[in-house]
Amino acid sequence: MPLPVRLEEIREAAARIRPIARVTPVMTSRGFDAEAGVEVCFKCENLQRGGSFKIRGASNFIFSIPAADLPRGVVAYSSGNHAQAVALAAKHVGVPATLVMPTDAPRSKMAATRAQGARIVTYERLRENREAIGGRIAQETGATLVPPYDHPRTITGQGTAALELLEQAPGLDALIAPVGGGGLLSGCAIAARSIAPDIRIFGAEPEDGNDTFLSFQAGRRVEIPPPATLADGLRATRPGEVTFPILQELAEGILLVSEEEIRATVKFLLLRLKILVEPSGAVAAAAVLHGKLPPGVRRMGVILSGGNMDWETLAAL
Amino acid sequence: MPLPVRLEEIREAAARIRPIARVTPVMTSRGFDAEAGVEVCFKCENLQRGGSFKIRGASNFIFSIPAADLPRGVVAYSSGNHAQAVALAAKHVGVPATLVMPTDAPRSKMAATRAQGARIVTYERLRENREAIGGRIAQETGATLVPPYDHPRTITGQGTAALELLEQAPGLDALIAPVGGGGLLSGCAIAARSIAPDIRIFGAEPEDGNDTFLSFQAGRRVEIPPPATLADGLRATRPGEVTFPILQELAEGILLVSEEEIRATVKFLLLRLKILVEPSGAVAAAAVLHGKLPPGVRRMGVILSGGNMDWETLAAL
Repeated sequence: MPLPVRLEEIREAAARIRPIARVTPVMTSRGFDAEAGVEVCFKCENLQRGGSFKIRGASNFIFSIPAADLPRGVVAYSSGNHAQAVALAAKHVGVPATLVMPTDAPRSKMAATRAQGARIVTYERLRENREAIGGRIAQETGATLVPPYDHPRTITGQGTAALELLEQAPGLDALIAPVGGGGLLSGCAIAARSIAPDIRIFGAEPEDGNDTFLSFQAGRRVEIPPPATLADGLRATRPGEVTFPILQELAEGILLVSEEEIRATVKFLLLRLKILVEPSGAVAAAAVLHGKLPPGVRRMGVILSGGNMDWETLAAL
Repeated sequence: MPLPVRLEEIREAAARIRPIARVTPVMTSRGFDAEAGVEVCFKCENLQRGGSFKIRGASNFIFSIPAADLPRGVVAYSSGNHAQAVALAAKHVGVPATLVMPTDAPRSKMAATRAQGARIVTYERLRENREAIGGRIAQETGATLVPPYDHPRTITGQGTAALELLEQAPGLDALIAPVGGGGLLSGCAIAARSIAPDIRIFGAEPEDGNDTFLSFQAGRRVEIPPPATLADGLRATRPGEVTFPILQELAEGILLVSEEEIRATVKFLLLRLKILVEPSGAVAAAAVLHGKLPPGVRRMGVILSGGNMDWETLAAL
């Protein structure tokens, strides 16, 4: 299969998003390495603008909208981090943004989105179809729909995280990222494999949100019921149409972690590394910390994909 | 008054401690700047080895002990962060460390100190004299006492934090750090003023641990009753004999913050900047966030001095 995104495009995206996205730091921890039994380089997307990697894909997409369409603004659906990213990127280019968010999205994510001047439309996550609502708004207003993961320009933007990581931490023999819709992992897999053809690629999912794991087993995109996992950013019910074939081709496997393993990892990263990583963002680290990797990995890149979290959610851990 | 520490010595210390101390990152936050009304560069000593700036002074002191004395080991008294730093530095050079810690020191700090292979001797903070206990152990064992703040070699080591910060964030017009015994601020003040003669220097203390503030007013070292502040690293009852004259000469003033302002700042740094800063480490940031600075400051260096914290303490916020 020819991959829908090339390294050269990811490099171009890195330049395009530079005015808004940070080159996030890479952190290491002797304590984590000792517990995990592997040397880990953490790519801290929790320290990214808007608090997650999502600004990479959202800004790459929005900054590529044709000038004739841009003034009519953008619309997106998201449980939170993509919403915040779209709001930030739209504000950066001075166009209106409408965000379709579930009524049970974390309050901090809704407040942060609103603070960027975006309009929020809520929907019932278990009853209503957010794609349909987003599509209707796009049709009515002429706004461009900004896909959260299943589009080559979004995937290209997310891939810039791995592009940076491989420059910041040379010599990685494996890379792992959380999988929701698969945009982050598919973009990072293309970037990493293009630069280091032997690097092993893994995804991580909550046991309760294992749509990509099951799809790997089945060899086709499987749909699951809406999951209840604490990792609210990984509640996709089916892998993407564009992202899944990329993952099938490039990823060695999807590692599953329990809710308790996610909680323990958020605590470890907070108390030992002194950084706040949201449950969704800690899922890849949880897989490494809890020994889910196959043998042979020595030096590992782990993407901490986001850090947006309510005080209440944190206290409930 | 001739200052007891010169910039050249701080530069030498920076090279000496390189094998053990990290060059910590500098972070910025548009959200913090907007609330505070000033542009802030945070020096993240919470991300330092051992979780605080203390490794700088402790390792500079220990790595300077004459070879003939070193094998008999080191002893120190500390509520926690200095203890952890001394244990780490002693382990690095392979000598025994004894730490005198108050019975009410945070559990995480005690556990981390023990994990480095150090021996812990506890004392009652309100009844016993830790200096006397430390001195007796030094006399009995021949171990070298590692002063937590009131010694030129300790001050020299702490000054390396500002040396780094001024390289990482050029053009600062002011610098602020928390004040316990004054070792961090006095070392940083010397480094900063030697490099940037016009830079304004401030200290920050909890209202409930205002010994340096009162000493500034009185023009001499004043002793206060043991404070109960949440900022357990800033419970010194009197400024140092070596540090205080340095602060008198170089610092413009000591800014006071309430317990509630400290708590709010720890939360802000956690939820917005995604980093864990312990109450003691957040006191300087609290002063800036809550408008305690005099007018005229535009671009500010703020030292976040540590990040060691129990889960229970965090949850209690």
